[in-house]
Amino acid sequence: MEEEVKLFGTWPSPFSYRVIWALKLKGIPYQYVEEDLSNKSPLLLQYNPVHKKIPVLVHCGKPICESMLILQYIEEIWPHINPLLPTDPHDRAMAWFWAKFSEDKGPIFFNFFRSTTGEAQEKAAKEVLEVLRTLEEQGLGDKKFFGGNTMGLVDISFGWLCHWFEVMEEVLGTKVLEQKKLPNLHAWAQNLKEVAVIKENLPDREKLLAYFKSLREKFVADLSNHNA
Amino acid sequence: MEEEVKLFGTWPSPFSYRVIWALKLKGIPYQYVEEDLSNKSPLLLQYNPVHKKIPVLVHCGKPICESMLILQYIEEIWPHINPLLPTDPHDRAMAWFWAKFSEDKGPIFFNFFRSTTGEAQEKAAKEVLEVLRTLEEQGLGDKKFFGGNTMGLVDISFGWLCHWFEVMEEVLGTKVLEQKKLPNLHAWAQNLKEVAVIKENLPDREKLLAYFKSLREKFVADLSNHNA
Repeated sequence: MEEEVKLFGTWPSPFSYRVIWALKLKGIPYQYVEEDLSNKSPLLLQYNPVHKKIPVLVHCGKPICESMLILQYIEEIWPHINPLLPTDPHDRAMAWFWAKFSEDKGPIFFNFFRSTTGEAQEKAAKEVLEVLRTLEEQGLGDKKFFGGNTMGLVDISFGWLCHWFEVMEEVLGTKVLEQKKLPNLHAWAQNLKEVAVIKENLPDREKLLAYFKSLREKFVADLSNHNA
Repeated sequence: MEEEVKLFGTWPSPFSYRVIWALKLKGIPYQYVEEDLSNKSPLLLQYNPVHKKIPVLVHCGKPICESMLILQYIEEIWPHINPLLPTDPHDRAMAWFWAKFSEDKGPIFFNFFRSTTGEAQEKAAKEVLEVLRTLEEQGLGDKKFFGGNTMGLVDISFGWLCHWFEVMEEVLGTKVLEQKKLPNLHAWAQNLKEVAVIKENLPDREKLLAYFKSLREKFVADLSNHNA
């Protein structure tokens, strides 16, 4: 009982899935608790009093918050099964560099999804493309995965691109991560979707599409109200 | 020669000092290279092509970028001398949690220093106070340092509060980190300034004050031009 692992998450959250993928990769049994963010559980508030956000991993009764820090913790506790990080210290630092890049650039993608006017959307799409180009040219190169031949920390941190971002693009009617613009990153996304641990652990595409459509409608309505 | 350590930094940057403190704490000899950010050296651009920012640590000819990732690397390479992190994995995760908090909340402090109208400044000061209250109540508690009796990763990541933030407050003519509002955090800042490695490695206060005054004047002038 003491060593049990619990994960508090929400089904549409790519941050929850980062943790799910790492736990599955390492074969760690865990109990999943779906949170309702419009009515947060007392346990979530107790476990993450600072940010009050998912995901939270609870191990041996103690909470760890923030998806990237949870991945770091998982790797520290269970380092030997499917390591998420290379062994060379400089390679490890580079993996953390790109993982941090994924965190730092998050708002640019969010902004892209929120932008409602044509001009703003075009500008936001350009910014997203620039981020993805940097990632492709300086991070991925011609490797299959960021971690080389097998997926690792950086693949997990950017893993949402292969499913959530595709759905976002569909909702917006725009395509940024496409083969002609980003051949290597596009191939990476296709490869990643074929990894069993990813393929078998993704939210249902239709359900996610409906969820993002309603989110998008909300953003557009908010803007109309704001301009009214 | 191969094992040499070089640090590219700038004298007013608290991010450079994070690295300096860690290197000094661990007694690692290094060569310091002062960068001119208005005319970045080809080496800096080569070492940090993505962000083109300081600090960069070069170890055995290989660059590591981003101050918190440099601290992580230093701790991985030289873990035994003055450890920056606790040994317990959950305590380590908590240290990383607060270190990440310091990174995430950086823009709030920057916004405080940039805000030029009375109303914006008051709002920004409130936001800063809220961050510092969270840090005091949920992070520091009544401990001497975040790491307990000796300084560690979180103390280094927030170390700029004890010198740079004080200078910022002086330039703005506002006091947020004061004893009556934040007794524990105020005591922590005083304690930190007395740690030899900090005390002996800080930019000159008068020089820093002049630097921040000119920065502030620039912000105010930019706003006037913008409104003209």
